Amino acid sequence: MTIVNGYEQSDNENKLDILNLPSLEAEAKKIIPAGGFGYIVGGSEDEWTLAENTKAFSHAQIVPKVLSNIEQPDLSTSIFGISLKTPVMMAPTAAQGLAHSQGEKDTARGVAAVGGLMAQSTYSSTSIADTAAAGEGAPQFFQLYMSKDWTFNESLLDEAKKAGAKAILLTSDATVDGYREEDIVNNFQFPIPMANLTKFSEGDGKGKGIGEIYASAAQKISEDDVRRIAAYTDLPVIVKGVQSPEDALRAIGAGAAGIYVSNHGGRQLNGGPASFDVLPAIAKAVNHQVPIIFDSGVRRGSHVFKALAAGADLVAIGRPAIYGLALGGALGVQSVFEQLDHELTITMQLAGTKTIEDVKRAPLTHFNYAD
Amino acid sequence: MTIVNGYEQSDNENKLDILNLPSLEAEAKKIIPAGGFGYIVGGSEDEWTLAENTKAFSHAQIVPKVLSNIEQPDLSTSIFGISLKTPVMMAPTAAQGLAHSQGEKDTARGVAAVGGLMAQSTYSSTSIADTAAAGEGAPQFFQLYMSKDWTFNESLLDEAKKAGAKAILLTSDATVDGYREEDIVNNFQFPIPMANLTKFSEGDGKGKGIGEIYASAAQKISEDDVRRIAAYTDLPVIVKGVQSPEDALRAIGAGAAGIYVSNHGGRQLNGGPASFDVLPAIAKAVNHQVPIIFDSGVRRGSHVFKALAAGADLVAIGRPAIYGLALGGALGVQSVFEQLDHELTITMQLAGTKTIEDVKRAPLTHFNYAD
Amino acid sequence: MTIVNGYEQSDNENKLDILNLPSLEAEAKKIIPAGGFGYIVGGSEDEWTLAENTKAFSHAQIVPKVLSNIEQPDLSTSIFGISLKTPVMMAPTAAQGLAHSQGEKDTARGVAAVGGLMAQSTYSSTSIADTAAAGEGAPQFFQLYMSKDWTFNESLLDEAKKAGAKAILLTSDATVDGYREEDIVNNFQFPIPMANLTKFSEGDGKGKGIGEIYASAAQKISEDDVRRIAAYTDLPVIVKGVQSPEDALRAIGAGAAGIYVSNHGGRQLNGGPASFDVLPAIAKAVNHQVPIIFDSGVRRGSHVFKALAAGADLVAIGRPAIYGLALGGALGVQSVFEQLDHELTITMQLAGTKTIEDVKRAPLTHFNYAD
Amino acid sequence: MTIVNGYEQSDNENKLDILNLPSLEAEAKKIIPAGGFGYIVGGSEDEWTLAENTKAFSHAQIVPKVLSNIEQPDLSTSIFGISLKTPVMMAPTAAQGLAHSQGEKDTARGVAAVGGLMAQSTYSSTSIADTAAAGEGAPQFFQLYMSKDWTFNESLLDEAKKAGAKAILLTSDATVDGYREEDIVNNFQFPIPMANLTKFSEGDGKGKGIGEIYASAAQKISEDDVRRIAAYTDLPVIVKGVQSPEDALRAIGAGAAGIYVSNHGGRQLNGGPASFDVLPAIAKAVNHQVPIIFDSGVRRGSHVFKALAAGADLVAIGRPAIYGLALGGALGVQSVFEQLDHELTITMQLAGTKTIEDVKRAPLTHFNYAD
Repeated sequence: MTIVNGYEQSDNENKLDILNLPSLEAEAKKIIPAGGFGYIVGGSEDEWTLAENTKAFSHAQIVPKVLSNIEQPDLSTSIFGISLKTPVMMAPTAAQGLAHSQGEKDTARGVAAVGGLMAQSTYSSTSIADTAAAGEGAPQFFQLYMSKDWTFNESLLDEAKKAGAKAILLTSDATVDGYREEDIVNNFQFPIPMANLTKFSEGDGKGKGIGEIYASAAQKISEDDVRRIAAYTDLPVIVKGVQSPEDALRAIGAGAAGIYVSNHGGRQLNGGPASFDVLPAIAKAVNHQVPIIFDSGVRRGSHVFKALAAGADLVAIGRPAIYGLALGGALGVQSVFEQLDHELTITMQLAGTKTIEDVKRAPLTHFNYAD
Repeated sequence: MTIVNGYEQSDNENKLDILNLPSLEAEAKKIIPAGGFGYIVGGSEDEWTLAENTKAFSHAQIVPKVLSNIEQPDLSTSIFGISLKTPVMMAPTAAQGLAHSQGEKDTARGVAAVGGLMAQSTYSSTSIADTAAAGEGAPQFFQLYMSKDWTFNESLLDEAKKAGAKAILLTSDATVDGYREEDIVNNFQFPIPMANLTKFSEGDGKGKGIGEIYASAAQKISEDDVRRIAAYTDLPVIVKGVQSPEDALRAIGAGAAGIYVSNHGGRQLNGGPASFDVLPAIAKAVNHQVPIIFDSGVRRGSHVFKALAAGADLVAIGRPAIYGLALGGALGVQSVFEQLDHELTITMQLAGTKTIEDVKRAPLTHFNYAD
Repeated sequence: MTIVNGYEQSDNENKLDILNLPSLEAEAKKIIPAGGFGYIVGGSEDEWTLAENTKAFSHAQIVPKVLSNIEQPDLSTSIFGISLKTPVMMAPTAAQGLAHSQGEKDTARGVAAVGGLMAQSTYSSTSIADTAAAGEGAPQFFQLYMSKDWTFNESLLDEAKKAGAKAILLTSDATVDGYREEDIVNNFQFPIPMANLTKFSEGDGKGKGIGEIYASAAQKISEDDVRRIAAYTDLPVIVKGVQSPEDALRAIGAGAAGIYVSNHGGRQLNGGPASFDVLPAIAKAVNHQVPIIFDSGVRRGSHVFKALAAGADLVAIGRPAIYGLALGGALGVQSVFEQLDHELTITMQLAGTKTIEDVKRAPLTHFNYAD
Repeated sequence: MTIVNGYEQSDNENKLDILNLPSLEAEAKKIIPAGGFGYIVGGSEDEWTLAENTKAFSHAQIVPKVLSNIEQPDLSTSIFGISLKTPVMMAPTAAQGLAHSQGEKDTARGVAAVGGLMAQSTYSSTSIADTAAAGEGAPQFFQLYMSKDWTFNESLLDEAKKAGAKAILLTSDATVDGYREEDIVNNFQFPIPMANLTKFSEGDGKGKGIGEIYASAAQKISEDDVRRIAAYTDLPVIVKGVQSPEDALRAIGAGAAGIYVSNHGGRQLNGGPASFDVLPAIAKAVNHQVPIIFDSGVRRGSHVFKALAAGADLVAIGRPAIYGLALGGALGVQSVFEQLDHELTITMQLAGTKTIEDVKRAPLTHFNYAD
């Protein structure tokens, strides 16, 4: 265990024997200090959207194709010409030092081990360069929480580009912090410095609540910002937090090279729909102009399959990977992705789909019952 | 604590540290005597409509607009030319002496402190003049439970007008008392005199059950009464308790200057729809001819947002404010409104809506699942 | 207490202080012996239809009409020219001696006291004549479980006519006993003789299970039986147990003077719809050619209102009245009907409906959510 | 009790006093060792589909026909010219030695006693010949888990044909083992040899997990395999595991003589629809070209009725019969089928359907509520 400012970080480095991703939450709760755990697990307001995110996968059902003459499904896919061994990617998740002393570095190692895609968060515990180095050449995206201070933004984007980031995820759904009651109950303040804040801004985030962190972030984010970041970086910009067809088209109109359908895991706006429920309409509107990344609520191989069949090109997970990080470091993260890939492989074989492209073309059916 | 006729009234005067409005109920239950608490919390019959009122907000979902380039949402709005700092108003709620020794006076103070709108009830514990004075010039409406005795009605209306009431809320959904089992179980009788009854009628309500109080109220209320009250007072008359488009149009035809969509917080007719469920059809029929006030079931900032987006111009709360009154007097009421305004502000920012007018134009989506 | 064949019958004769009808079940369970209580309370198979019967009332909602200028609702109505003070009638319910030593006689007294309509069951504990006499001139119907032995049928019909029965209810949904697990678990056999069996057949039902009783009943019931009974008695024949528009029209085609929509309180066919769910389509098909009686699941004034608004002319209750019988004899039965009438009166006033005819014309709305 | 490789097999041979099939699970759990019980009871992944299978029967309701003039319903039916006394058949279920020392032999005896149809599984504990002999001439089908080794397939098909199998069920939904968490938690390996593996392949399945068993089965199954098996055996081939109209038509196009609608009792693909939910569309597409067998979730007589009315010709059960086997051997299996036949008989009589053909023509209605 590593103790930083009185906060106990896990030092675990071991593979995990995982039954399923939902079971990780209770295990992780035992070793992550209460404040950190509350920050990770919590959603906003009455957490209706958080709960609905996972429940919504039962709103559509897989239609298997039997006698399909396939075997050994192939999970490999690609985005922007980047080859990936799995369509499951790591969502940009803040402050991973709350879960493990190696923070994002171990996450990058675990994701690299499965041939997946890592996304770094602006509010990471380890620096862009360190996390990139830990990934040993595996592809990474960089997520930007846009600051009011454009110099800060440019410093981050410069650093990300220098570290080899393949795309920028511009978060659009967090212009203020969601009303997260867990953090209020715990009076939670970040005990671990945020590496990028330390390096490029006056404060380091330590001893602040998420509200104070967000206070220096930009509230006003516009289509012009998409254009500006794309022009500045010459990298694909993916707008993260899209929840409607209209916004997807506006983002593309502003030069977005990808759409990231997400409600921030139910941590920001509460009272909006489950992320999975809005995916089909967005995919229809986007109509393959740009790739779609999807997250929020994914816990099962069947969820990944349904998200792909509903229009996603990549599917991201957040909390389960962080729990794996706490429980096993890089190997724990690797175990989480392997488990989800394993479930997805079985689902693909039983659904009669050999490739990720087959999954994307697979039909879903809808029995509109409540359970 | 103040003891009146053996009933223990809170004297608290302090701000509240509120996590959320639903959590206030359990706290208030600890300090409001059982009979009074049962009267406040209870609904009618099997309380289906009461429960459905809050559940119904999950029947519609907010569609956020990202990249909307807004910050610092502005909650100010107006009705009948009256400027308000928040669209959340105080519903006319009877007998607030059950919750606090200062009764409606403290409620008026708390509402004034947030720049909101106060509505006085006919069956208030403090007099029209006293409550108005406590509000220190902040806008107030007066709610009329029409009596069979027209002289009584005129006395009340005279007094309200003299005290500066900006509009009359004519309650139309309480021509008899709902079948409230909590009151029966507690054999509840009002321990505190009702100031307006003391002043203008023979009895004062003390020692009576709600059924006896309502017995002297008019059962027969008609469109003619709307016309008569409007003519008598020369004030805007808002018909309260409307639950169908047909009734809204009839009320407007009779001269109503506003429509108050409500099912009385599930305390009157049971077995009718959730108030939120009927709002869109009524708003469509009213078509901006007159403003719409909405209540019943509102507990969250996202609820206020959804009600405004579904057609309301103002959104009222009752029980949560009364719990705040019991727990903290005027400051407690203020805390309740501030909490709801805080949640609403976050929701507005995250939904990409800068003004209340933006919220009113915001789309809602409907995934018709049961949860 | 009266003990018959070791079975303890209640002798209570007292008015009841009733909060609501659902609460009577637990009270009655304390004084009715387990076997008898299981027989009364139980439904068939997994009791899906039983549970759905009451839940289904939330599938439609009352649309109140405010400003309706009414007071003092009038519950009086009529069927076949018989004036009734309430639209709530007593369903024909077997073996009421299980609940009370006075059996059907006390039920008839209680129903007469409220000006309602009593229906006698073939399998009653007291005789047709005795029950009729106890009703002191109040209107009664007689329900026929048609026997394979036509002589037995004629004897019963003669007796019923002689006793003044105004109509015959021909039960069509009980051609075999439903699979009632409570009776199997209790190994229940009727401890009390059935008066009509004693008088007109070889056995008296005592010491038999419901399966054995039904075994002597006719399984083959046809449209010809409707004609035959109508011709033999020259009384209106109402076919009981109708659950589809097609059957309602076939019954009318065979001379039925009324349709009784019911699924036998969920005691016969399981897996069919809630009785309330099928009522509107049947009412539409019947189109006022003959009156419609409705039962199954009614526990609240709002349920009665909804059933009338959905197409019923009279609404029957069974189990709650039997619980009232056990708890208070004739006065207990009276209390049950008075409670339901009280709730209905409030519902009518708040819905803006002065008469039962108004209720029948009142609109219902449907928010198709699950709760 | 018989102990094989440390596993305790039931030797019970007695009729069962069955209240209903769902109640058997808890009883069987007491006498089947944990690993074996987990294998039998478990579904795949989060068991959504498993749970939905039974819940889905409430998505349709039986519309009874009263005054139908029928008695003594007749459960006899036929398939491929084979006369059966009941439409309820035994699903091909693996490794019945887990439940009883007599394994499939006792199941065959029990099924023969009720005049039903037995289906043998490739992975049976007793041999094709022994199980066939135990059935004493009663009709049997043979289910093939197709091996990668075609010689093995031919050996099994030869043996089945020699033993008198009337049709081949080709399982198409198990090209890999579903993700069954119960087996993982129990680290379950088959303790009992699989007779057909012992006889025709190198290993006998003992000491292996289901994943290892399936590993030697074919993953690639195609329409050509249907043709090949039909040509080789000259027996009707029924494709088992069909869940869509498209697949049903493809199977028929490949020469399938029957369609078996099933999701393997929720043990294979999770996240697909309930088997009952997909049945009507498949039946409509098949349009009586070939017979349809249905399983997954059937526990009640009303479920059998609904499946037949929704398009099935035969309805199979698995787990409940295995529980009966454990609790009572051949007589236990017989008791289970008798109980279901008893419930079905009551349902048919109360629905007004005299024959299985009547049931198939009976209407269902759909109130799309969630419960």
